[in-house]
Order: sequence, then C-alpha cells, then structure tokens
Amino acid sequence: MSITRAYAAQSATTPLAPWTLKRRTPRAQDVDIDILYCGVCHSDLHAARSDWAGTVYPIVPGHEIVGRVTAVGSAVTRFAPGQLVGVGCLVDSCRQCASCVDGLEQYCERGSTGTYNAPDKHSGGVTYGGYSTRIVVDEAFVLRMPESLDPAAAAPLLCAGITTYSPLRHWKVQPGMSVGVVGLGGLGHMAVKLAKAMGARVGLFTTSPAKAEDARRLGADDVILSSDRAQMKAQSRRFDLVLDTIAASHDLDAYLRTLKRDGTLVLIGVPDKPHAAPNVGNLVFQRRSIAGSLIGGIAETQEMLDFCGEHGIVADIERIPMQAINEAYERMLRSDVRYRFVIDMASLKP
Amino acid sequence: MSITRAYAAQSATTPLAPWTLKRRTPRAQDVDIDILYCGVCHSDLHAARSDWAGTVYPIVPGHEIVGRVTAVGSAVTRFAPGQLVGVGCLVDSCRQCASCVDGLEQYCERGSTGTYNAPDKHSGGVTYGGYSTRIVVDEAFVLRMPESLDPAAAAPLLCAGITTYSPLRHWKVQPGMSVGVVGLGGLGHMAVKLAKAMGARVGLFTTSPAKAEDARRLGADDVILSSDRAQMKAQSRRFDLVLDTIAASHDLDAYLRTLKRDGTLVLIGVPDKPHAAPNVGNLVFQRRSIAGSLIGGIAETQEMLDFCGEHGIVADIERIPMQAINEAYERMLRSDVRYRFVIDMASLKP
Repeated sequence: MSITRAYAAQSATTPLAPWTLKRRTPRAQDVDIDILYCGVCHSDLHAARSDWAGTVYPIVPGHEIVGRVTAVGSAVTRFAPGQLVGVGCLVDSCRQCASCVDGLEQYCERGSTGTYNAPDKHSGGVTYGGYSTRIVVDEAFVLRMPESLDPAAAAPLLCAGITTYSPLRHWKVQPGMSVGVVGLGGLGHMAVKLAKAMGARVGLFTTSPAKAEDARRLGADDVILSSDRAQMKAQSRRFDLVLDTIAASHDLDAYLRTLKRDGTLVLIGVPDKPHAAPNVGNLVFQRRSIAGSLIGGIAETQEMLDFCGEHGIVADIERIPMQAINEAYERMLRSDVRYRFVIDMASLKP
Repeated sequence: MSITRAYAAQSATTPLAPWTLKRRTPRAQDVDIDILYCGVCHSDLHAARSDWAGTVYPIVPGHEIVGRVTAVGSAVTRFAPGQLVGVGCLVDSCRQCASCVDGLEQYCERGSTGTYNAPDKHSGGVTYGGYSTRIVVDEAFVLRMPESLDPAAAAPLLCAGITTYSPLRHWKVQPGMSVGVVGLGGLGHMAVKLAKAMGARVGLFTTSPAKAEDARRLGADDVILSSDRAQMKAQSRRFDLVLDTIAASHDLDAYLRTLKRDGTLVLIGVPDKPHAAPNVGNLVFQRRSIAGSLIGGIAETQEMLDFCGEHGIVADIERIPMQAINEAYERMLRSDVRYRFVIDMASLKP
C-alpha cells in the first residue's frame, strides 16, 4: 500500500479538497500508473454531490484517466513501464457472465466495478478515481493510448468518446447514413466528430444559436435549432439514427419524428426526472425504436482509441489545475465549458 | 358499379345496421371477391364509434377478409375465378416511396389506403370494408389463402396474424430464443402460436389466472401472472423479445426488466392515453429498446399465410352471423371472446 495524493468530497455539501488515499500494492496482473491527466465528466459532479443515490464518502471522482505505466506485475503481458495508457469508467467485472464473455463488461450481469465509488474487491471499501496522482488497475482494464494524440485532449475519449462511439458502431453508422446528435456538450461534441469520421452526414440539434458555428467547425453538416418549430418540421423522417446526449428531462417525440422508418433514438443520458411519455404512434407507424446505451466494453474502447488515433480525433478541452475543480463544477452547471475540462495532474504533484 | 349488402354504422352512437354500398366496376388489374368470412378486430369497434379521430360515416368496418374470386380484370395474372383469397388492412399504397419499394406498404410515406374509412382513389369518398358480401381489390393487395386452412379461422390471420408475425420475423425470432407475449387476446393468442411455431420458448404474461390453461394449450411454455410481483421478478432478464399486445395504458418498465441485454419490447397497440414514461435506466443499463410495429407488408403477409398453411396455424374463433355484430362488440369490450369473432357472411346473403 502506498499513499497517494487526491482530491475528495467528504460529503454531498462540501467542496472537493485535498485528501490522501491508499492504493493497493500491485498484484501480479496489475499495472501501476502515474496519472498525467483526468477528464471531468458530469457524472463526477453528480456522484460527488450525491445527486444519485449511493455515494460513499469520501469520494474521489474521475474516470477519464491518462497516465504512464511506472511498474507492472509479474503476470502482465501487454504493458510495460513508460507506456502511455488510459483507464475509463471500469476497473473490473465478473468476467464470466454472457456480457463479459461478449466483451461488453459495462453490462456485466453481476455488476461491473466502476473506477470510483464502487465496492473494491481487493482493498475493501470503495474504489477511488482519477482525481489523484496514481492508480493501480488490472491489466485487463487498461487501454493503450495512441502516442500520436495530445494525452490531455485524449483523456475524455475514455468516457465521452466511448459513450458516443459505442452506439454509433452498434447501430452500424457508415457512409451514406444520416446521424442526428442532440446537444453540443462533452458527449455531443465527441458524437459529432466520431459520426463524421465514420462517414455519416451529421445534423446537430441545439437550443443555442451561439453554438452553430462551433458545431460546423466540429464537423456538423447541418445545425438545427430545436426550439424552432419550422426547422424541426423540416427534419421529419431524415435520420437513420439520433444520438440524444441530453440528460435533462425533455420531449422525445420531437426527435422521434426526425427518424426515418426503422430509425433509432438512442438515449445515453439518464434523466433525474423522467422524460414525458413518448407518443407510441411515433414508434408504431414507422417501426421506430427508442434505445439506451451505456459507455462501451474494454475491447471496443481500445478499438475507439485506435480509431481516434488513426483519424486524429481528440476532445476540445480546457486544462485546469486540480485546485480549480470546484469552480469547474460550477461552470459545468452553467454549461460554460467548450467542451471538456481536463485536470493537469502535475498540479497535484510535489 | 353494383349494389352490395353491408353492415354500417351511421354515427358514433348508433349500432351497426344493414346498409347497401356500391363497389366499383372492376378495372383491368382488379379482383372481384365474394366475401365468405370477415374477422372482427378491435380497430373495427374503435373506428365505428369514432374513438379515434377521423371516422367518416357511414362506416363499413372489416379488414380480415376471406373470400372466393368471382371475376378478374384483363390484366390480372396471379388470380383466377374460384380461388380462395384474402384481403387484410390495406387495399392500396403509393407503390413508389422507399417503404413501398421495400415491400413495406404499411409504412408508405404518402399514406397507404386502409381497407375501410380511407380516402378511395378510384370511387371517391372512403373505402368500405369486409362487413359486406363483396369487395373489389387491386390484385397487388390480394393474398392467396392456403386451401388447407379452415377459411373462417384463417380470416384473423389477415390482421391479428400479420401484426404479430411481422415483428417476430423483423426481430429474427428463431429456435433458442425466448419470446414474451403480453396479453392473451386476439393478437396475443396469435403471437403465442406463431412464436412457438418459429421455435422460440414462449412466456405469456396475463392478468387473468383463468387464462393460464388456455395459454399452455395454445403453446406457451410458461404463464406469468403479471400482477404477481414475485413471478414478475423471476422473469428478470429472461426474454430476447417481448411482444406487448395491450393497447390500454400500462407500466412498460415491468416488461423492460424481463428483457435480456439488447432485448426489445415491441408495442403493437397504440394507447388512447399514453403509457407512463418508462425509466430510461431500464434502457441504458442493458442496451434495451422499445419499438413499435404496424401490421406487415403485402409480401410478408403472403409469407405469413404460407407459414400458417405449412404449420396448420389458424385463430381460435367464435363464428357469428352479421346480425350479431353489436352484441359481439359489447362482448369484446368485456374481453369475452376466445379469441376472435368471425362473421359468417352467408348470414348477409339472400
């Protein structure tokens, strides 16, 4: 066990502040990682403030981790010291259920182990995330980061990237297809870049006229102001797939109507208050679907990172020191970030 | 034009009563059909009573039609006098849009022509359905009925049969899969028979303990009392596909939870009042979908009829004379039918 510097919330109402935690002594299959950068996901904020049930305090958030391997256990075969690696939302799973065997550890039937605030099988207590200088992870859950990408800007690929890449792949996005993306935030801006790189025509739905120019720069072919009834009507039956990144409760029918026959509206945010019940007619009369999707499996996350390396795709980020995390949370609540904060962990090192 | 006996509702509040209508003189591509039997669908009742908007009076319902060809136009190639044929929910479509070209006329982008109460392209006014002794239909919308099946019991295949067959095929039901069916009515009892014939293990969800024995006789491997919390909990993550035949507003989450990862809940009824909003977590955390499906295309309806001929599948029916239709509607409202009324049209002939 060794002492690691971190930032933690001690309760739902206290700001994140310096703390120290103990990382386990690496086992034979573990990779010891010096954390360089950690992206700041909306989930971090929700978990820190216990907006969802189940937060155990103190909590150390962070699941968009990029770092360098400092040591590997004797059984580790795929990683070596000095290598640039990533850790995303998961650090373990049962590895035996149908989902794990299918490489879909995020849907583990026994419950995968989240990178933070999940029961820790090895050390007891809960897992502590990437708002820290070091992490020890089983090599099966460590990713190879393409050296060609800016490691800070690549950090958000570990959650925002895979969360949008996985549904785009699962619903087989390819050249000739039309993909709609709802919302231009951390997830949405990645969805636009990735769908475009897969060859789709991309339409971005936003409530903010001010984001139109940015959306086009990021790759959107069309920008649709979702509050404008005429613009929305013009999108009727236009998209094969719509990726809805908005977690706040909203009208799903408006987006269902933009789908072609057999189109799918994929929700990747879980709202605090339910969306209004969709009109079943919008499903039945064009055989449309509403689906949900959760991050991605480890193999698919590696595939996504390699895809991003090949296409030079990273997130648009704003670097912050660890000490600015509470201010960053406040700005996230005002949607004042284009499009992801990434913590430079050098700020937490002596 | 020729005069045809029929039963019609003259308003939303008057019972169906004898009426006469004019069928068009057959065109070159038309098939002239002497109606032998017509199934009674819940939609007939809703349309007759204007429970949905848009009923034009007088209305002659009926879209589960079986009859014999009496004459064919000069351009008809696939039918001949004396042949047993069927007509389902559609008698025309644009035949040019992507859906029509794909053989999915039910999703025609310009709107398909329903067998009753739809604008009639040829004769003006609206179309009149199968509660009548004769119908004239374009051969492109006429189906071959397997001679091996009881023609009365085969009539409900034209709507209840295809409405359940189409989603079972679209979502690729095959041996080794588990299919849940919600509700044992006209649609549900066909879904059980068809899913079983496709080789699936079938679970039937019902609120009526009294239907358990019937469900097993029809082919259900398991019967789950949906009001019993323990029984429902035992079905967690068990089905690849759940076909929900209940149009009344109900809790979708209870059925979403019975789906495996990547499973789909297919709604084939459109509720008057919306279902409660489903929990998005039930979609996201197992990549499940909620979809809708509407009847089936003409080619698929023929495929379904051939499948039923091969497997000896028909509906469980109660034969009634035309004159008993109003009483039959009242019994349908009480779910007092096992499982489909079929009108013997001899009762309307001189």
